[in-house]
Formats: sequence, C-alpha cells, structure tokens
Amino acid sequence: MIDIQKLVRDLNTVRSKSPLIHNITNYVVMNNTANGLLAIGASPVMAHSLEEVAEMASIASALVINIGTLEPEWVKAMLTAGKTALKKNTPIVFDPVGAGATSYRTKVCKQIIEECKPSVIRGNASEIMALWNANVQTKGVDSTDSSDSALDSAKALARQTGAVVVVSGQTDYITDGENTRTVENGNPMMARVTGMGCTATAVVAAFAAINGDMLEAATHGMAVMGVAGEIAACKSSGNGSLQVNFLDELYNLDEAAIRNNIKQS
Amino acid sequence: MIDIQKLVRDLNTVRSKSPLIHNITNYVVMNNTANGLLAIGASPVMAHSLEEVAEMASIASALVINIGTLEPEWVKAMLTAGKTALKKNTPIVFDPVGAGATSYRTKVCKQIIEECKPSVIRGNASEIMALWNANVQTKGVDSTDSSDSALDSAKALARQTGAVVVVSGQTDYITDGENTRTVENGNPMMARVTGMGCTATAVVAAFAAINGDMLEAATHGMAVMGVAGEIAACKSSGNGSLQVNFLDELYNLDEAAIRNNIKQS
Amino acid sequence: MIDIQKLVRDLNTVRSKSPLIHNITNYVVMNNTANGLLAIGASPVMAHSLEEVAEMASIASALVINIGTLEPEWVKAMLTAGKTALKKNTPIVFDPVGAGATSYRTKVCKQIIEECKPSVIRGNASEIMALWNANVQTKGVDSTDSSDSALDSAKALARQTGAVVVVSGQTDYITDGENTRTVENGNPMMARVTGMGCTATAVVAAFAAINGDMLEAATHGMAVMGVAGEIAACKSSGNGSLQVNFLDELYNLDEAAIRNNIKQS
Repeated sequence: MIDIQKLVRDLNTVRSKSPLIHNITNYVVMNNTANGLLAIGASPVMAHSLEEVAEMASIASALVINIGTLEPEWVKAMLTAGKTALKKNTPIVFDPVGAGATSYRTKVCKQIIEECKPSVIRGNASEIMALWNANVQTKGVDSTDSSDSALDSAKALARQTGAVVVVSGQTDYITDGENTRTVENGNPMMARVTGMGCTATAVVAAFAAINGDMLEAATHGMAVMGVAGEIAACKSSGNGSLQVNFLDELYNLDEAAIRNNIKQS
Repeated sequence: MIDIQKLVRDLNTVRSKSPLIHNITNYVVMNNTANGLLAIGASPVMAHSLEEVAEMASIASALVINIGTLEPEWVKAMLTAGKTALKKNTPIVFDPVGAGATSYRTKVCKQIIEECKPSVIRGNASEIMALWNANVQTKGVDSTDSSDSALDSAKALARQTGAVVVVSGQTDYITDGENTRTVENGNPMMARVTGMGCTATAVVAAFAAINGDMLEAATHGMAVMGVAGEIAACKSSGNGSLQVNFLDELYNLDEAAIRNNIKQS
Repeated sequence: MIDIQKLVRDLNTVRSKSPLIHNITNYVVMNNTANGLLAIGASPVMAHSLEEVAEMASIASALVINIGTLEPEWVKAMLTAGKTALKKNTPIVFDPVGAGATSYRTKVCKQIIEECKPSVIRGNASEIMALWNANVQTKGVDSTDSSDSALDSAKALARQTGAVVVVSGQTDYITDGENTRTVENGNPMMARVTGMGCTATAVVAAFAAINGDMLEAATHGMAVMGVAGEIAACKSSGNGSLQVNFLDELYNLDEAAIRNNIKQS
C-alpha cells in the first residue's frame, strides 16, 4: 500500500524546495532527464569533469550515477562524485544501465556499488539479475526478463549492499531486502521511449533529496513515474507523443490525478 | 519498383526479432536515433568506450558508425567495433556526417571505409560527392546539392568500396553501382529536423540486421523513412511537431499505410 | 523600443542566407539547439574535436561557445575555435552556463572571455552576477535572482569586456554598457524547459552572423525567442509540449506574429 498523503506531501516538498540534483548520466537521455526533473519541480545539473564533480556533488541534494554511455574518464568522475556524496550523507541513486551486456559494465557497476554505497539502485529485471548473478548475460540495455523473475535477486542485492533496490517492469518492486513495496501503474509503451528508466532514476533522486526514508522515497518516485506515464500513454499514439505527454503529465501531476489513477494491490 | 510484400515482410521481421543495433553515433542525435529504432521495433544500444565496443559489437545484429561529432578516441572505438563486426560478417552502416566540411572528417571517412568495409554508406548529396571527389567542399552538415547530382558519385563509390551507397534527398537513390533503386517519398520539412538523416542510417541498419541483401535492406529502410516522414509532415506545423509525429508514424506503420502512401516511379 | 522593420528584415536575412553556425555546446541541449537553429532558418554544425575546430570555425558565420558540460579537452577546443573566430572577425556568442556554481566554471569563463573576446555574452541573472563578482555563489544552472538585480553587473561586464551582455529573465536586458534594450516577451514556463537559454544563445548567434551591430543582433535574437516562446506557452500544457510548440512557432514566425505579440515598454 502506498500512503497517498505522504506521496502528495513529498511531491509538494520537491516543488517547493526544488532540490539541486547532480546527474552524471548518459548522452542519450540527458535532455529527457533534465526535463523530467524540471517537470517534477527539481533543479537538474549535469556535470562530469573531474575538475568540478566533487564541488558540484557537495552542493547537491542528491546525486544520480548512470553508466549508460560509460568510459574510463567518466567512471573516475562518478567515483569521485560518489565518494563526496557518501561522505556528506547525500543520497546516491545508481542506474546500472546495461549491466550484464559487457564485462566492462558489470565490473564498473560492482566498483561503484562498493566504493560509493548508493542509497538506491534502480534497474530493469535483466540488469538487477546481472548485478546479483554475474553469469547472467543481458542483451543490450532492454530487459528480456519480467520484473517478477528479478525480485529474489533484488532482495538479495539489497541485503548485500544496504541499498534500496528498485526493479522496473510491469510491476515495479522496491525493496530493502526485508520490506517490499510495489507500484502497479505504468504502460508497456513506456519501454519504447528511450531513457524512461533513466528518468525514473532521476525522479527517485528528487524524492530521495527531500525524504530520508529511502524505501519511501523510491516508492514515491516510482509511483509518480507510473501514474504520469499511464495517463500520458492513454493520450499518446506512439513513442514520440508519449515522450512529450509524459513530461506534461509529470508537470501537472496533483493529488486528484494521483488519487484517481493509482492502483493499489 | 519496391516490392511492397517484401518490405512488409521485413518490417514485421524487425518487429518480431527486435534486433540489437549497436550505435556509435553523435551526441546531437542519440536520443532521436534510439527512439527511431524503438519505434520501428529494434533494440538500440549506444556504447563507445574502447573497453567494451568489441564485446558490444559482437553481440549486435548490426553496427551503426556515424561521425557527426567525431574525436580521436571515438574514431578508435569506431574502428575497433567496425573490425569486430567485419570479422563476424555483421552488417555495418556508415554515416559520413559532414564529409568534405573539414579535412579531418574526410580523412576519417576514408579510414573507416578502408578498414571496416561498411555494407552500406548513407549520406546526403554533398557528403557522397565529397567522399568520391576529395576536392568537393561542403558547408557544415547540410547538403547544398540535389541528390540527382550525386548519383554518378554514388555509383562510382559503390563500385570502388563494395558498399551499397544511399543518397538521401528529394529522391533517395540506393545503388550497388550496377543496380539502382529510388524512393520518392518524403517531405522537404524533414531536412529541418536535426538528425533525420542519422535516423535513416539507423533504420537502414535495423533492416540490414534481418535481411542479408543490402540493396533490398537499404531500400526498405529508406522507404519506411520516406513514408512515415511524409505522413508525419502532413500533420505537422513545424520541425518540432514533425520530430514527434515522425516517431509516432514509424511506431504505427503498417501494410495499409505503406500501400496507401508509397510512390512508385 | 525594438524597430520591428529591422527585426523582420534580419529574420528574413537569416532565412535566405542560412548562415552556418558552429556550436561547441553541451550534451544536454545539442538536439534542441540544432533544431532551434534549423527552425529559424540557420544551418547548425556541432564540432568539438581539436583536429577540426579551427577549420570549422573558419568557415562558419558565427561561433557559439557554451560551457554547460565542460571538461578540459573541450575547453581547449573552445579556446582554439574562439581564437580562430576572433582572428577572422567572426562573431562569438558565449554562454557561461553555471558560472559561479563551481570555481572551475568561473575560471574557465574568465579565460574564454579574456582570450576569445566574445561579441555577445548571454546568461541568466545569477551567471552574469557571478561573472562580474566572483563572490557570488550560484546554485547549479538555474537562476536564483531576477534579471533586474543583474542589470548593473551586466553593464559593468559589458564595459569591461567590450561584449554586448544579455541577461535573460522576466525582462531580458541587452546592453553594451552605455545603451540598454529590453525584451518584455516570454513566459515563466520557458525556464522549465531545459536548454531554453542555450537555444537563445544560438539564435542570437544566427542574428549576429548576418548583422554586424551586436546590440541590435542580440536584441533581435532575444525578441524572436520571447515572442515565439510566449505564443508557444499559451498553447502548451507543460514543459514537454512547450519544447515542441516553441520550435513550431519559431519555424513559422513572421511579421504578423511579431507585430501582434511584441510588447514594447
């Protein structure tokens, strides 16, 4: 069960505080991610140079690390920013894009988790399974597994790392290893918009910036994504309009829209 | 003449197989390209690090090399990925963005063609002419020539390189040096959406991933682009809505839409 | 007062000459910026490699330098391109994204201004104040100050650097230190679309490419942004649709739309 009052409270807090979210993310989604954060009311900044990531991370209210188009210099910056955030108790939300697709991605994911200790890890089923079981081979960056099949891996990963783990899919699972929340909203067309998962990671970071309970913050972020995405999908005839409508729905999301559309299992 | 039955067969195969397309492309168009591939039913991945490009190329069904925002490290990755794909007989579709605009671009284009032996080269008239005749100076990345004027260069380039060469323009020409196909669909407004040519390159790669006949695959890719673009342009009042509507039309393209809109010369 | 006849004359000149605008800009906005320039009728090219920036800058009609996602290699390219443009008297429009947010950004801004002598500097209030007074700390890349509060800094910066300085905000101020123009058009929702300021910088460059009077060119660029943005905002229900509608309005902007919508103080 999602407590709608708390969700609305957090949404209003994001909008009134407009927390600065520092993103070290991939080239493909930077524009969507920034617009997604602006839509929800947060203030995004993208900065990846070793010359400034520590300083930027130290003024941010949350840090997003997303390895979608990783390379060695960027990984160094992710680790530097991550360690700064860790030292300052600033929440880190980690998106292991394509974990399992190449050995480099899997290796970097492990390093980031070990050295930066993210507060939240959000991925699709294939990615979360690959993080837990190095023998899982994934195909590119799209999931080939259902989120249900990754729940055990998610719980084990959460217990091992201390992070809240989110598996996106038809049902989103949010778990700290002991307690598990679900979000039933969303629409399959969302998987056909590039970077929708990356935007989810950033939106989770906006909630983590203003709510210290990471299980609750991640659940609120995923609920907001699911509700806005589902409303937008109903108005969209393809992935082009869905990308646009999704931002508009996120921009306008309010208590009535949440109450009228949220699915509680 | 385009055989519509074969085109529809290939479109359905792309959608059912969802081939993994590995893109080493430019910053400007990564988002559009990924969404274009998702719209047509393929699975895009962007990866450019030397640490992983060989591994990623080896699991992909086609490789896109696009030099739009090239730099030396990226060129190394293009060559590494290209040689891997060549060894595995994975089709490579090459987009020589801005060939002729600077000597660096022209030089890199020659190196990629020589070392990676792309299956398909797709460019605008100015780019194709610059590839064939090093003395042609182009202005930035937009074509200043008609596609007709580049046909002879395209045929000669095809004979020299063994690649199928595509010249985009009012009429698209697809040639292996001996046989030439044309696509008459499209709309001039498409040239006002950045990266429309780059998306064409990626869509051609999706067809090349599932049809070993490169002349046919490239023709099918360009036909799908032209038909979807033309329908979308009729619904659009500027380049903003065209970018969105184009993705929606590609997403929904079916046999009826193709039969009702394709122009056969 | 904006002379509408001169503004329309310049808009028509941009469209007929389609000047090549060389952009060294940030990853987040490259797609929007390119589409914004195509919408207004200019020809954008993005190129950042040291191997080609001097050559590209030397064939361009204006150069945009935008430090949004700066790193040392890119800064080298900015300086090389900038010095080339300076030598050729090609106008440079500089966007000091996030000046004041980190010491690295502030330092690079000073270096670019000193070594490249931009013709126009365009930023939000926080950025312009940080450029003038190194003690101002800004929060990320969004302004926390009103444009009015930055006017004195803008004038002083213009006198010090010889550049026309533009402060974007509810009222846009354009000043050479002695003479100041204002643009009253626009809509607050524009600040919720990522890269709207970066697009303004690029559009100013398109006008600077065809009008040697930098105060006039910058005023015309900002007026066009404000009018198109204001019309688009009225048709938009969020930042998703605003990004799309803005490009369409820019694409279709004509004398009637300007006359009917421009606000003169």
